[in-house]
Amino acid sequence: MAKIKVGIIGLGTVGSGVYKTLQNFKDLVEIKKISVRNINKPRNIENLDESLLTENSEEIVNDSDIDVVVEVMGGVNPALSLIKQAINNKKHIVTANKELLAKHGEELFQLAKENNTVILYEAAIAGGIPLIMPVKTILRANNITKIDAILNGTTNYILTKMDEDNAPYEKVLKEAQELGYAETDPTGDVEGFDAAYKIVTLATIAFNKRIKLNGIYREGITKITDKDIKFANEFGYKIKLIATAKIDENGYADVRVHPMLVPKEHVLATINNVTNAVMLSGKPVGEVIFTGPGAGEMPTASSVVGDILSLAAEIGKTDYPLPMMRCNHNEEAKRIDIGETKNRYYISLNTENIPGTIGIIGTICGKHKINLSDILQKSSNKNTAEVVVITALSKEDDIKAALKEMKNTKAILKINNLIRLMN
Amino acid sequence: MAKIKVGIIGLGTVGSGVYKTLQNFKDLVEIKKISVRNINKPRNIENLDESLLTENSEEIVNDSDIDVVVEVMGGVNPALSLIKQAINNKKHIVTANKELLAKHGEELFQLAKENNTVILYEAAIAGGIPLIMPVKTILRANNITKIDAILNGTTNYILTKMDEDNAPYEKVLKEAQELGYAETDPTGDVEGFDAAYKIVTLATIAFNKRIKLNGIYREGITKITDKDIKFANEFGYKIKLIATAKIDENGYADVRVHPMLVPKEHVLATINNVTNAVMLSGKPVGEVIFTGPGAGEMPTASSVVGDILSLAAEIGKTDYPLPMMRCNHNEEAKRIDIGETKNRYYISLNTENIPGTIGIIGTICGKHKINLSDILQKSSNKNTAEVVVITALSKEDDIKAALKEMKNTKAILKINNLIRLMN
Repeated sequence: MAKIKVGIIGLGTVGSGVYKTLQNFKDLVEIKKISVRNINKPRNIENLDESLLTENSEEIVNDSDIDVVVEVMGGVNPALSLIKQAINNKKHIVTANKELLAKHGEELFQLAKENNTVILYEAAIAGGIPLIMPVKTILRANNITKIDAILNGTTNYILTKMDEDNAPYEKVLKEAQELGYAETDPTGDVEGFDAAYKIVTLATIAFNKRIKLNGIYREGITKITDKDIKFANEFGYKIKLIATAKIDENGYADVRVHPMLVPKEHVLATINNVTNAVMLSGKPVGEVIFTGPGAGEMPTASSVVGDILSLAAEIGKTDYPLPMMRCNHNEEAKRIDIGETKNRYYISLNTENIPGTIGIIGTICGKHKINLSDILQKSSNKNTAEVVVITALSKEDDIKAALKEMKNTKAILKINNLIRLMN
Repeated sequence: MAKIKVGIIGLGTVGSGVYKTLQNFKDLVEIKKISVRNINKPRNIENLDESLLTENSEEIVNDSDIDVVVEVMGGVNPALSLIKQAINNKKHIVTANKELLAKHGEELFQLAKENNTVILYEAAIAGGIPLIMPVKTILRANNITKIDAILNGTTNYILTKMDEDNAPYEKVLKEAQELGYAETDPTGDVEGFDAAYKIVTLATIAFNKRIKLNGIYREGITKITDKDIKFANEFGYKIKLIATAKIDENGYADVRVHPMLVPKEHVLATINNVTNAVMLSGKPVGEVIFTGPGAGEMPTASSVVGDILSLAAEIGKTDYPLPMMRCNHNEEAKRIDIGETKNRYYISLNTENIPGTIGIIGTICGKHKINLSDILQKSSNKNTAEVVVITALSKEDDIKAALKEMKNTKAILKINNLIRLMN
């Protein structure tokens, strides 16, 4: 293999892991430069060659000697303009930046095509789990039509601990922050943005159609209570933040991120703590599942360096390295609005503790073509009761109409939560 | 991508799946010829182009027009000589033949190297599960040191049914044969040969050292009784046929196939029926698990056609397609004899139903440096008792010596079984 020269933009958690891992591959990959925000910041990297450091990322993207630019800084700016400049300078890109890909993937892949360069991003989705390369290469024969995944370690950790410790969301979030599993501002994780970025890019390559970020439904875990988790357990389910994508024969895609009640015997219900898992369904393969570490310094470095070594194997041998890894998803998938989809639902209500309440709920549901499959009523005190129902498959718009009517019904004091079920 | 020409040797279950799947990729792959044993045999393949069929495989391996030979006939002869001839004719090989690779991989990969051709074999190990390509490409940065896997669907189906139905081995084997999950002569599966072929090749590429088939320990499931499964459950374990491989810092490999008691909460204990699963451990990635269909017409075709499409993407673009997929494992791993390894053991005994039997067992074990961690005694009748013990970590040679002594002890009537535990 030829020895290639790389420049690394960013030396935070992922960048450090990449630097350390590349020390084992000095015969294949030479690190030419590393750009950092503050060159004087103390770093916990053994034998770091400080002569490689620069505060000016432009030096990397404009260095005619560099073959591959490794972007591990994260965020849209200035990553977007730096990567564009690098591509215009005919450099191949390895990135772990899911937000950038979800928001600007189309533009970047088009630019890469025009410049005959490759953008690799194994680390951007599910961290250390091999996913992008298998989907694009060895699973290429498949018509993948469904993805169900746990793509965010932080929320999976929080939901696992809420379940194990029977603890409320706020308490577990605080613990997760103290352990470094959640950020000080946890919005990106707990509101489902991170998982949304990932499922958008994953569905795009799996379906071979562009999925737009603004077309997907997203809902986080902040409204999930320890009571929801307890009730879910009683019905035989675990609550997980699921990123899911389906495409039908007519090219209509249903892509979403939201909490779901997952049957306990389903493999995704058994994925705990910060582990990620991705289930792909398609023909001819059937169903394959990938499980592993979705984040962290060293697992993410495994994927970044895997991409770098794949480029190292082909650069210099061909003018067109890694043809299968090149993207071409100009055709946009058509979108199914969530209101049109059919799901099963968990609905948690506070009601007056009077005879006939279940009848009232049943009547409203019936009126909106909603069948109930499970009902659980618990009197919290003399005056009020908690009622949890699980519906049969129902149209989301019908559920919304029924909930609206329930809100205006005297006997129903409060709608606590609405959570979809995994079928 | 260039359109490549392939010849297919074999049109059985896998070959049929490959033929059907390739119909979707006529723009990339042309099937030039298919060799079959009997050209007149009726086949259940829609729109089969019978003009492609020949009974002479030599026509395929010697056809100067063919770029890739797809060998899906199985067995060593005549597959070995045909593939050698094809490689000598500078053809790339795609094969699903695990036995051939385990027995003659070294020779074949050397020949391919000399002829600048690639041998791909994603389908040979774990059927439809992406494994070989991920290990060789995107996981390349890793030092993989441990594999734990369920690689044989037939035995996993039998063990699952024995557990679910509380049924004896012979009854379940018969059912599996009727359902087509086991062959008329089930030896290859139930004695662990099939799993051994697979782990040998998988460990070779994962460890980057050649593992020889004759150096590994192999034991099948024919001695597992429904009682063993019941006792294992009482202790919190499932019994699975596990293919496992470890390599230490000094390059000593411990590779084996045998039944194991797997803790119920371990992911491999939850893999049921014909599903396969492979857990890889290494640095920097940590632990990744691949789960999916390990056999069958269409899942296997997914992997075979995935290999073909990967070649199609690079043939014609470079003189050296798929550099990362080329094998070079001339260095043989050193071997640890199973007698030297330390394991935990499940030992099932029939004893006289007299006071002091447990004491006798404990004394023998103690003499051989074996600590017991769990003991279960059940009196089957007035005169005899069943005793099951689980040991702490002990050296296999010590266990063998203890069992020998037990055999010569009057109070111990019979040693029913010895099964290792997964740590």
